[in-house]
Amino acid sequence: MIIVLKDNCSTEDYSNIINYIESRDARVHTSEGIEKKIIGVIGNKHDLEPSSISALPGVEKVIRILEPYKLTSRKFHPRSSIVEVGNVRFGANEPVIIAGPCSVESEDQIWEIAEEVSSTGGDVLRGGIFKPRSSPYSFQGIGKQGAGWMHAAARHHNLQIISEVMDTNDIDALYDKVDIFQVGARNMQNFRMLQTLGKMDKPVLLKRGNSATLTEFLMSAEYILNEGNQNVILCERGIRTFVEYSRNTLDINIIPMIKNISHLPIIVDPSHATGKVELVNPVTLAALAAGADGFMVEIHPRPHEAFSDGHQSLNFNQYRELLNQWTSLKESVISLRELNNKNVEIEIF
Amino acid sequence: MIIVLKDNCSTEDYSNIINYIESRDARVHTSEGIEKKIIGVIGNKHDLEPSSISALPGVEKVIRILEPYKLTSRKFHPRSSIVEVGNVRFGANEPVIIAGPCSVESEDQIWEIAEEVSSTGGDVLRGGIFKPRSSPYSFQGIGKQGAGWMHAAARHHNLQIISEVMDTNDIDALYDKVDIFQVGARNMQNFRMLQTLGKMDKPVLLKRGNSATLTEFLMSAEYILNEGNQNVILCERGIRTFVEYSRNTLDINIIPMIKNISHLPIIVDPSHATGKVELVNPVTLAALAAGADGFMVEIHPRPHEAFSDGHQSLNFNQYRELLNQWTSLKESVISLRELNNKNVEIEIF
Amino acid sequence: MIIVLKDNCSTEDYSNIINYIESRDARVHTSEGIEKKIIGVIGNKHDLEPSSISALPGVEKVIRILEPYKLTSRKFHPRSSIVEVGNVRFGANEPVIIAGPCSVESEDQIWEIAEEVSSTGGDVLRGGIFKPRSSPYSFQGIGKQGAGWMHAAARHHNLQIISEVMDTNDIDALYDKVDIFQVGARNMQNFRMLQTLGKMDKPVLLKRGNSATLTEFLMSAEYILNEGNQNVILCERGIRTFVEYSRNTLDINIIPMIKNISHLPIIVDPSHATGKVELVNPVTLAALAAGADGFMVEIHPRPHEAFSDGHQSLNFNQYRELLNQWTSLKESVISLRELNNKNVEIEIF
Amino acid sequence: MIIVLKDNCSTEDYSNIINYIESRDARVHTSEGIEKKIIGVIGNKHDLEPSSISALPGVEKVIRILEPYKLTSRKFHPRSSIVEVGNVRFGANEPVIIAGPCSVESEDQIWEIAEEVSSTGGDVLRGGIFKPRSSPYSFQGIGKQGAGWMHAAARHHNLQIISEVMDTNDIDALYDKVDIFQVGARNMQNFRMLQTLGKMDKPVLLKRGNSATLTEFLMSAEYILNEGNQNVILCERGIRTFVEYSRNTLDINIIPMIKNISHLPIIVDPSHATGKVELVNPVTLAALAAGADGFMVEIHPRPHEAFSDGHQSLNFNQYRELLNQWTSLKESVISLRELNNKNVEIEIF
Repeated sequence: MIIVLKDNCSTEDYSNIINYIESRDARVHTSEGIEKKIIGVIGNKHDLEPSSISALPGVEKVIRILEPYKLTSRKFHPRSSIVEVGNVRFGANEPVIIAGPCSVESEDQIWEIAEEVSSTGGDVLRGGIFKPRSSPYSFQGIGKQGAGWMHAAARHHNLQIISEVMDTNDIDALYDKVDIFQVGARNMQNFRMLQTLGKMDKPVLLKRGNSATLTEFLMSAEYILNEGNQNVILCERGIRTFVEYSRNTLDINIIPMIKNISHLPIIVDPSHATGKVELVNPVTLAALAAGADGFMVEIHPRPHEAFSDGHQSLNFNQYRELLNQWTSLKESVISLRELNNKNVEIEIF
Repeated sequence: MIIVLKDNCSTEDYSNIINYIESRDARVHTSEGIEKKIIGVIGNKHDLEPSSISALPGVEKVIRILEPYKLTSRKFHPRSSIVEVGNVRFGANEPVIIAGPCSVESEDQIWEIAEEVSSTGGDVLRGGIFKPRSSPYSFQGIGKQGAGWMHAAARHHNLQIISEVMDTNDIDALYDKVDIFQVGARNMQNFRMLQTLGKMDKPVLLKRGNSATLTEFLMSAEYILNEGNQNVILCERGIRTFVEYSRNTLDINIIPMIKNISHLPIIVDPSHATGKVELVNPVTLAALAAGADGFMVEIHPRPHEAFSDGHQSLNFNQYRELLNQWTSLKESVISLRELNNKNVEIEIF
Repeated sequence: MIIVLKDNCSTEDYSNIINYIESRDARVHTSEGIEKKIIGVIGNKHDLEPSSISALPGVEKVIRILEPYKLTSRKFHPRSSIVEVGNVRFGANEPVIIAGPCSVESEDQIWEIAEEVSSTGGDVLRGGIFKPRSSPYSFQGIGKQGAGWMHAAARHHNLQIISEVMDTNDIDALYDKVDIFQVGARNMQNFRMLQTLGKMDKPVLLKRGNSATLTEFLMSAEYILNEGNQNVILCERGIRTFVEYSRNTLDINIIPMIKNISHLPIIVDPSHATGKVELVNPVTLAALAAGADGFMVEIHPRPHEAFSDGHQSLNFNQYRELLNQWTSLKESVISLRELNNKNVEIEIF
Repeated sequence: MIIVLKDNCSTEDYSNIINYIESRDARVHTSEGIEKKIIGVIGNKHDLEPSSISALPGVEKVIRILEPYKLTSRKFHPRSSIVEVGNVRFGANEPVIIAGPCSVESEDQIWEIAEEVSSTGGDVLRGGIFKPRSSPYSFQGIGKQGAGWMHAAARHHNLQIISEVMDTNDIDALYDKVDIFQVGARNMQNFRMLQTLGKMDKPVLLKRGNSATLTEFLMSAEYILNEGNQNVILCERGIRTFVEYSRNTLDINIIPMIKNISHLPIIVDPSHATGKVELVNPVTLAALAAGADGFMVEIHPRPHEAFSDGHQSLNFNQYRELLNQWTSLKESVISLRELNNKNVEIEIF
C-alpha cells in the first residue's frame, strides 16, 4: 500500500500516520520526491483498511499495490482449473456448449428442446425455473414442477443441467434437480447466497453483474471459493454501457484478461450480451476465438411463443447454423487453445 | 405498443402478425408511412409480451408506449405520498435528516453518535448491522448484538432507526430493532426480498442500484407496493460511470424526474454518491435545492478508526458545518418546496 | 414519427398539434389506445424537427420510426461496398492488415517497421505524423518531415499508407504522402473536417468516438458520403465504460450490427480498444471471427523506446505470433465471410 | 511515479529498469514488500513516459503520483481566478447568468431574446451561429450574418456575447462579434483549435466532452493556458451514461471537485445536461447550491418554432420562474460562497 501525503501535511500529521501504521504491526518505508512525499506500507495486514487511512489528516490518497483476490488468482494457483460436471469439462481444450430455453414453459417444450440440444452435440441443458424479472407483472418462472420435467428430459438425453437460483431458499429446492447452480447477474453480489453456494458440493456458474468491475467479479467468486467450493465457472454476459442498439455490450477483453490473472474457466452468454438474435452467432464465434471456455445460448422452437426473451432466442435453424459455423472453426481454435494453455504455464513458472 | 414492420415483410408475415395479436384479445390499428408500415396495438394485455412479438417474422422492432409502472406512478396516485415513521415524515415540506456510522462497531460508538445526531436536530439514526462487502476478507458487520445497542441508543435519544437487510432472513432478525428497512444498491433487484418486504408493516428505503435505469428503479419499488406495503422511500446514491475521481456519480436529474412521474418520496445518500468527504456537503445542498426529501450521511467521531467507509464519513465538525450550511438555505428551500408541491397538483388535475 | 400525447392534452392543444403538422405538408394518422392517444405523422419532411414538436403543449414524447442515416444504410445500398486503395480491398473476402508505429519517430524507425510489415504480408503502413495528445506537454508528433520518410519507406515496400489528420489544415499537408486519411476518435464529430474530407478523392478511415452511439457513428460517415466521397472505412477502437482494467472496451457487437445495417466496411483497432499488449492478439482474432474487414495494430521494434503508446504496442515477436494465429484461422474465417456475404444479399432482395 | 514489478521479474530485467530510469536523469528508490517489489522514481522528467516504462520486461504496472495538470491546478495558483468580461466577473461571489437561443434564427428573434435576457437581469447573451449537428441534414447554423444581428442586439442591451467556434477558421470569423469564445463538448479535444484560442485575447468557455474524465477536462484547459490565455471558464454540461430518461447526466460532483483542485471558474449548462425543460430549473438551482459560478440556459420565445433544441429550451415564463426561484435562494447561496472562498485560501496556505 502506498500513502501519498498532502503538500501541507504537518510534522505532527506525519508522525500520527507513522504511529498509526506501526501500531498495527506494519512497517513503513518513506520516500520523498521533488514534489511529493510518499509512504510505503510493508506487511499489509487486513486490519489496515485503506479507507480509514484515507481519513487521517495529511493523507492525500492511498493506492493499493496488491490485488485483493487470492484464491481466484493465477498467482496462487498457476495451473488452469478444470471444472468437471459429469462427462463435461469446463476449462479443458474443448469449449462446452450450453443451450436451452430462457424459461421452462411446459413438459413438452423442455423435452423438445432437450432432444435438439442432445442430437446436435450439446453438453448442458439450461432452463429457467425461477426467473428474476424486472417487473412484478411479468412471468416469474414455472416453479419447482418444471425442475422435474427438465431433470427427466436432460437425464434421458444424457445432458447436464444448469438452472438459476435467486435466493438461498432456491438452493435446497433445486439441489436434486440440477448439476450446476447458476448465479444471475443481478445476484452477483448477493453475498449470503454466494456463501451458501460455497458450502455446496455442486459447481456454480457465476455471471458477471452488468456493472461489475473485474475485481468485483473475482471477489464474488472468491466468496464461493473461500467457503470451500472450488468449482466455479465465470460467465461474461455483457455490461451496461451508453450503447443504444444492443441490450448490453459484451466485454470481449475480459476473456483473455481472466485467462491471464485467474485459473478459473470463463464462458460467455451472447444471448444476454447482445439481446438480438442476429448478433448472437458472430459474437459467439468471436468469444470462442478469444479463448472462451464455452458458450450458453437461449434457444426456443418458436421464439414468438416464448414466455420470456423471445427476441434473443435462436430458433432451431439459427442454432444449427451457429453450430455449423463453430464446427468450421473448431479445429483451429482448439489448436490455439492447446498452445495458449502451454504458454500460460511456461510464463508463470 | 407500436410494431414497426421490416421493409421486406411479406403479406403472409403481415397476416400472421395480425392474427397473433387478435388471437390474444387485442385490436390492431395499422398505418402506412411513405417508407415504413407500422401497426398500433390497442388493449395491451399482459399476455402480449413485446420480446415475443419481436421474434415474429417481418417485425423490425416493437416500441412500448405505456410505461410499465403503475402503483408507483403519479398518474395513478397524483398526490405526493408522505411516509410517516414515528414523528418523521418523508415527503412533507421539511426534508428529513438521517445520519450515523457506516457500521455499528461498539456500544460506546453508537451511543456517542446517537447523542450527536439527536443533539444537532437529526431525525433518523442509521447504522449497518449486516454489511455487504465486496471482499469476503472485509469486516462483515457486527451482527445482531449491535442492533440491540443501536435500538437502545436511538430510543433513548428519540431517533428513528434504519438499517440494511441483505437477505430475507435478515428481515426477521432486525424486525424488532428497526423502524425502516433499508435495501442496499446491490440488492435493488433481489426480488424475493422485495416481495417479503412488501408484506411487512414497516417502511422500506430502497436504494437505486448503481446501474439501474429509472424504470428498473421504479419497477423494484413496484414489487414492494404490489405486495401491499405502500411505505416506500426511494434513495439516489450515485451511479457507476466512467468518471475516475469519485466513487460514483450522483444523478441529480433523477430528483425532479421522480417528483414528476412518481408520488413516492426520494432522498439522497451523498456519502456513497461521492465517496469523498470534501464533496459530501456541497452535493447534499445541491440535492436539497433540487427537491430531495431528505439526505442520509455517514458520520463517525474518528473516521480513521472506522471499520469501513472512513474515507467518506464526515467527522462531527464536518457534519455540523453541513448542518449550518443547510440551516442557512433551509427556509428558502422549504418555500420552494411548498410552491412546487402545489404546482404538481395543479398540473395533474 | 409517432407523437404520444399527454393524458391531460386538451382539445385545443390537440388541434394545435394537428395544425402544426399539417401546415408543414405532412399528414396525420391518429389512434386512440385505452390509456394513451397517439398521432402518427406520415411524410416526414426535414422541416418537422422532433425536438420542436416535443415542445408543443400536450405532447408527452416524440418517437422516431425512421433511422436518420440514408447514404450509409444498407437499405439504400444493399450490396456491400468495397473500398479499394491500390491493390488493397476493404470489404472483400480477405481481411486487410494495417500495422505500424503509434508515431513516426525517425527515418530509421519507420524503415525498420515498413520492412517488418511488408515482409510478413501486411497491406497498409500506419504511422502518426500529427498526434492528438491529452496533454500539451506530451510529444505532439514529428510533423511533416516524417510524412516524407514514411512515404518513401512504404512505397519502397509496396505498402499503402494511412495517417491521421487532426484539422482541415492537415489534409493539405498530408495529401501527397498518404493513401488513406484517418480521422481519430476525438475528431469523429469534427464536422468541418468531415465535410472537407468528403470532397477529397482519397479514402477516409473513420474511427468511432469513444462515446459515440451507433447512430452518431453512421451520421458522421454520412457527412463524408454526403459531400461525394463514397470511400469510407469504419473503425471500432473501443468505447469508454466503467471498466477499470483496460483502456477501453471493444464493442464486439457493433461488427455484425454494422454488417446488417450498413454497406460500409468496418475494421478494428485492438491496440486502443484494449490498451494492453497481452490482450491485443486474442481480441484481434475475436474481431475477425465476428466478421471484421481487417485490423490495425500498433507495432514497434522496441516498445519501451516508443515516444507514445509503448504499453499497447506489439514488439515484432508478438506481432508475428498474432500473424501466425491469424494464419491458422484464416481459411475457415474467409469461408464464413463468403457465405455471409451471400446471405446478406439474399436476405435484402 | 511508482513502478510495480512482476513477481517473476529477473535480476537482469531489474537492472535494465534501473538503468533505463537513471539514464534519463531520474533517481530510483526501491522498496520490497512481503509480496511485491516496487520502485519509486524521483525527479519525474517529461522524457520518462509511463507508457514506455510499462513496456519494459519485468514491469507489472506504472502508477503516476503527480497529477499531470499544472497551470490549471490550485497548487500552482492557490487563489481562485476571476475571469472578467466587460462588467461581468466569472468566479466572483455573484454567479453569472447566460441565456439565449440554441441557434440565432433571425434578426427579430435575437432582438426579442436579448430584450428578455437584459430586462430580467441576465449578464451574457448566448446564441449559436455555427452549429455542430450530428446529422448533415439538420440546420447547420445561420452563419456569419447572424453574428452581426446578435452583436447589435447585445450591445444595445448592454449584454456580453458568447458563441461557439467549431474550427480554427471560425475564430477569425467571430472575433469582432463575440466577447467569449465557446468550445463545444464535441471539440473539447480539438487541440489545434485550443492552441489557437490560447493565443487570443478573449476569454474561452470550455465545455466538458460528454465522456471526458476530470483530468482530460483540465488538460484541455491546460492547452489554452499554456499558450498564454489565462481566461478560461470551465463548463459542466452533462456526461454520457447508461441513463435512459435524460439526454445526459449532470455530474454535480465535479463542481466542488474543480473548486478544490483548480483555480478556474466553473459554470453549468443544465439545458444540455438534462435535455428536458421540466428538469432545467431544479437542476440549475442544485448546481448553484453546489458552488457553480454561473449557469447557461437555452431560452426561446416559442420553443416549438426553434430550429434546434426546442425540447430543452425554456419559454419566457419558464425562464422567469427559474429567475424567481434563484432570487429566493440567492442571498443565502452568496453567503455560503463568501465563506467557502475564504476557507479555500485558509486551507491551502
